[in-house]
Amino acid sequence: MIRVAIAGGAGYTAGELIRLLVNHSAVELKYIQSGSHDGEPIYSVHTDLIYSDLKFSNIDFEDIDVLFICMGHGNSAKFLEENPVPASVKIIDLSNDFRLKADAGEFIYGAPELNREQIKGCRCVANPGCFATSINLALIPLAAAGILPEDVTVTGITGSTGAGQKPTQDTHFSNRNANLSNYKVFTHQHLGEIGETVVAAGGSEATDIAFVPVRGCHARGIMSDVVVRLEEDLDKIIDIFKSYYASHPFVCVSDKPVYMKQVVNTNYCFLSLQKEGRKLLITSVVDNLLKGASGQAVQNMNLMFGLDEMEGLRLKASYF
Amino acid sequence: MIRVAIAGGAGYTAGELIRLLVNHSAVELKYIQSGSHDGEPIYSVHTDLIYSDLKFSNIDFEDIDVLFICMGHGNSAKFLEENPVPASVKIIDLSNDFRLKADAGEFIYGAPELNREQIKGCRCVANPGCFATSINLALIPLAAAGILPEDVTVTGITGSTGAGQKPTQDTHFSNRNANLSNYKVFTHQHLGEIGETVVAAGGSEATDIAFVPVRGCHARGIMSDVVVRLEEDLDKIIDIFKSYYASHPFVCVSDKPVYMKQVVNTNYCFLSLQKEGRKLLITSVVDNLLKGASGQAVQNMNLMFGLDEMEGLRLKASYF
Amino acid sequence: MIRVAIAGGAGYTAGELIRLLVNHSAVELKYIQSGSHDGEPIYSVHTDLIYSDLKFSNIDFEDIDVLFICMGHGNSAKFLEENPVPASVKIIDLSNDFRLKADAGEFIYGAPELNREQIKGCRCVANPGCFATSINLALIPLAAAGILPEDVTVTGITGSTGAGQKPTQDTHFSNRNANLSNYKVFTHQHLGEIGETVVAAGGSEATDIAFVPVRGCHARGIMSDVVVRLEEDLDKIIDIFKSYYASHPFVCVSDKPVYMKQVVNTNYCFLSLQKEGRKLLITSVVDNLLKGASGQAVQNMNLMFGLDEMEGLRLKASYF
Amino acid sequence: MIRVAIAGGAGYTAGELIRLLVNHSAVELKYIQSGSHDGEPIYSVHTDLIYSDLKFSNIDFEDIDVLFICMGHGNSAKFLEENPVPASVKIIDLSNDFRLKADAGEFIYGAPELNREQIKGCRCVANPGCFATSINLALIPLAAAGILPEDVTVTGITGSTGAGQKPTQDTHFSNRNANLSNYKVFTHQHLGEIGETVVAAGGSEATDIAFVPVRGCHARGIMSDVVVRLEEDLDKIIDIFKSYYASHPFVCVSDKPVYMKQVVNTNYCFLSLQKEGRKLLITSVVDNLLKGASGQAVQNMNLMFGLDEMEGLRLKASYF
Repeated sequence: MIRVAIAGGAGYTAGELIRLLVNHSAVELKYIQSGSHDGEPIYSVHTDLIYSDLKFSNIDFEDIDVLFICMGHGNSAKFLEENPVPASVKIIDLSNDFRLKADAGEFIYGAPELNREQIKGCRCVANPGCFATSINLALIPLAAAGILPEDVTVTGITGSTGAGQKPTQDTHFSNRNANLSNYKVFTHQHLGEIGETVVAAGGSEATDIAFVPVRGCHARGIMSDVVVRLEEDLDKIIDIFKSYYASHPFVCVSDKPVYMKQVVNTNYCFLSLQKEGRKLLITSVVDNLLKGASGQAVQNMNLMFGLDEMEGLRLKASYF
Repeated sequence: MIRVAIAGGAGYTAGELIRLLVNHSAVELKYIQSGSHDGEPIYSVHTDLIYSDLKFSNIDFEDIDVLFICMGHGNSAKFLEENPVPASVKIIDLSNDFRLKADAGEFIYGAPELNREQIKGCRCVANPGCFATSINLALIPLAAAGILPEDVTVTGITGSTGAGQKPTQDTHFSNRNANLSNYKVFTHQHLGEIGETVVAAGGSEATDIAFVPVRGCHARGIMSDVVVRLEEDLDKIIDIFKSYYASHPFVCVSDKPVYMKQVVNTNYCFLSLQKEGRKLLITSVVDNLLKGASGQAVQNMNLMFGLDEMEGLRLKASYF
Repeated sequence: MIRVAIAGGAGYTAGELIRLLVNHSAVELKYIQSGSHDGEPIYSVHTDLIYSDLKFSNIDFEDIDVLFICMGHGNSAKFLEENPVPASVKIIDLSNDFRLKADAGEFIYGAPELNREQIKGCRCVANPGCFATSINLALIPLAAAGILPEDVTVTGITGSTGAGQKPTQDTHFSNRNANLSNYKVFTHQHLGEIGETVVAAGGSEATDIAFVPVRGCHARGIMSDVVVRLEEDLDKIIDIFKSYYASHPFVCVSDKPVYMKQVVNTNYCFLSLQKEGRKLLITSVVDNLLKGASGQAVQNMNLMFGLDEMEGLRLKASYF
Repeated sequence: MIRVAIAGGAGYTAGELIRLLVNHSAVELKYIQSGSHDGEPIYSVHTDLIYSDLKFSNIDFEDIDVLFICMGHGNSAKFLEENPVPASVKIIDLSNDFRLKADAGEFIYGAPELNREQIKGCRCVANPGCFATSINLALIPLAAAGILPEDVTVTGITGSTGAGQKPTQDTHFSNRNANLSNYKVFTHQHLGEIGETVVAAGGSEATDIAFVPVRGCHARGIMSDVVVRLEEDLDKIIDIFKSYYASHPFVCVSDKPVYMKQVVNTNYCFLSLQKEGRKLLITSVVDNLLKGASGQAVQNMNLMFGLDEMEGLRLKASYF
């Protein structure tokens, strides 16, 4: 059994990670750390887990095989400085502290559809961002095929869980419900990792992504609509996508237009492609907390420990 | 023109009051006071009013005819202590500070369907609570007819705006959306004014109301389902209701079961009645911010100043 | 492996059953029948299952161990008349055709928390209704303890999936969203099975349940608020509940008030109890499609075939 | 008083039109025609109007000054063929039958911000589409200034009321709630009138609009995000917009990013602009049923009859 610890155990992504790992056949959940809830039962925070005996506690790093860090951005690096982790312990970090090349050190960018082989052999993984995952999976095949145009326009619509658990005016139900708004227009922090992914996949440094993130009136899920103008036939482009993802079990290229709830509460990314003249739409849907965060983290753990990539991730879609 | 000031102008009920009064033919909106926003344009808070030139400012009490107080519960009494209001200025308070007989002083309980004549002649009105309005209007005719049973069971489902604008875990979209929960079970603070209303209408002091308030996953509107067991025929009961409300323009007794969105964004209360054996259901729907707060406050102002009761309150329902 | 067939495979409950059974370790999903979709891949209807090769087809009854019937009410009896099922095949019917004693024949009412031992040995199970499950689990312990009062008042709020997949004005998003309404007031068809359950558990034939079903503005989940007036201490009542459900893994008695999303996308029922004077509130939350339908059907299958009762039902809650 | 008739009185846009006109000071609502509801009270369909005595009836065309046609696309032309309307009666048609130059005949395209003077003098108006209104108002100033680039990318997110009142799988609450999907990608029927508007405003015939319409999980409102790449400074572009709309009371150019609920249940269009490098985002929000349909129709009526353009359209925003 893989002995697991979670640092920063009270947030949304930690909650999802716990929900996944309590049913993972190869995992023993040893420590769930939370500064603000030490000693409390985990169901005091993750209230569906009322049937679990797990408690928040400090981590004995000698007694674990892998550490998930689910802290706010900026806090992971600090946590690792203050808590020296033995070299025998693998690390999967869900923040953006180690995603960019300039920050990565020994961390591998944990996109299995880009870096699967590297992830298998590595000690430390920087788990990608939610929007980044959604958009990367729409761009990688075009970049790899050398046909991604420079001008890319993306509208990504996300749910309220993307904003974390701290209540704010932006996540106040009275404001968010039946509403739509944009934020961080053209400047979202995931643009860095998207740009590096495009280049890593074979695309151009000059790729210019106009990304408009939208706050949707739903709780979980992202739909990204990527529009580019290019000449290639739709059939050829679909072949490129299907071929690229043939060996990747969590990415499905659909013959029909996809919609968001197909993948909510699963680790899947569904993609569909539509074309009219030069205009190509690639639609990518993921659950921001699973394929966009904790599910992908488990997928990375599976790869790092030589397990079936889908272990613990065969999840019933909510669907409704 | 009636010169109006609003104290506590930054909250939800003040926002609704401003939206109503900017279009009220007999009102001049002179002062909108807010401690935290003094000097700012009102659209900095009430962002739909971008086309308005109004600014938050202090109130010159010599220059107004009526003061609306839209402060948090407990703060109205304090505000009036600190700000002596000339006797020539009428007061409509939207908090619960003056609703109960023990606290009322010269304040009249501002339920027009119970106290219309008293409201017309008075200087100070305590505007009823939102749940109280919804439930009172379902109980008053039975109490007045002397047939309200002692055991009354009420489920009242309310929107997130009932909880005010401060963001909390209970109003966090991620928690509230697609969810239901109860709160203040059997102990909601409106039970006091409901009990006094029942007695004022002719009911018994022994009336025992089991009130379960429910947080619904919507932003505005209350549906209260009132269940009692009594012997009278449904036709007779419907007659009692229709007769009671014949002269009250904002209460409609529907022949078909009512639903909440019929009244959202209006000042109406719709009622319907259904019976099976001894079991009677009275359903009452209101908009918590309008008939349940700011709309009823304007209705009271209209009565106090001898205007048409409906002036400024002929509102287009959202409906969808 | 248990060889499974599903009749009526295109509806909501069939979809949920398929989603559960594709991941059930002891099941081989052999046949999914649908008159209107014969020969099509199941993902043409259940569109999340794009990665599955299953197709709709006719059933070879000689080649299965258990048949789930997911047809509309009234159609199960007809289906069984037209399709003689070998005596070796067990049957789990999700309609209301066989739930009442008068209709049951050899069918056992499939409430494991009432009839677990009988279900283990039987051939045919009538799977309970969704509202019935939610309300039964709130009433059974009181009935069994002999302290259920005659007058019971229930408000049950359900999601749109309870109304099935046929689009109607009642399930039109424009009408349902941000709305609340009652339906089948005091006359809901589940009252029959609830009444028989109360008696079977030890309660009185005279129990009079005032049941107000409410259409909520959410897709999945039921919250039932059951109000009775009785003298016993809350502590004693909680003991009765905890004791009754101690051996039942899918029912949790919570020390804190429960809310609906704790159980959405799971097979759990969570219960909480609150009391003030004589007034007792029992709150019961279930997922109407899982514990209220397909999940409970799998639970029954597990019992009938001697499997772990929770097999295939350790589901990740959606939670958000 | 302007004597008004509505043909096709049972649909969503007719309902909104009635809600507006019952409170319009210069209008007498004489006839509301509906083939399927003749003789019924209008509140049997538009159920909030329970306090109205209006009934569905046939139209006496000699007794009216203006006819609104609220029929499905294709049916307006047919209705006018079968019902010869006297030359003295003005016509405002809400379908797309007469919007394009090729179909228009004597109909003027009823976009007051493009054609106000022509509308004032005309007999027949073709009221613009909802998406078209939203997108046109974002493009007209750039086209008029001669700086609209050829490649325009638009994501427009609309509510369920845009799909009309007929229940379908796409508007089924179980499917629509908490979901997002695209439809009519790059081929939406409003592209024709948008293209003609761009040219009429001064833009190029070669303008290539990549329009991705998105089904949002809300009932009313459209947010359109228009992305272009151009060199001009943001300040200059904002000046162009503010200058263009200075005389148009229902279009506000906001200094802060706009969001959809600011305009829901009003006749306003709010616009905001953001720029980063060459990338410009214009965000346009409208209520699809008001500025996008019935509200704009009343605005056109006001212009055609020489009334204040805002008469009957000073509406309280729902806001929540």
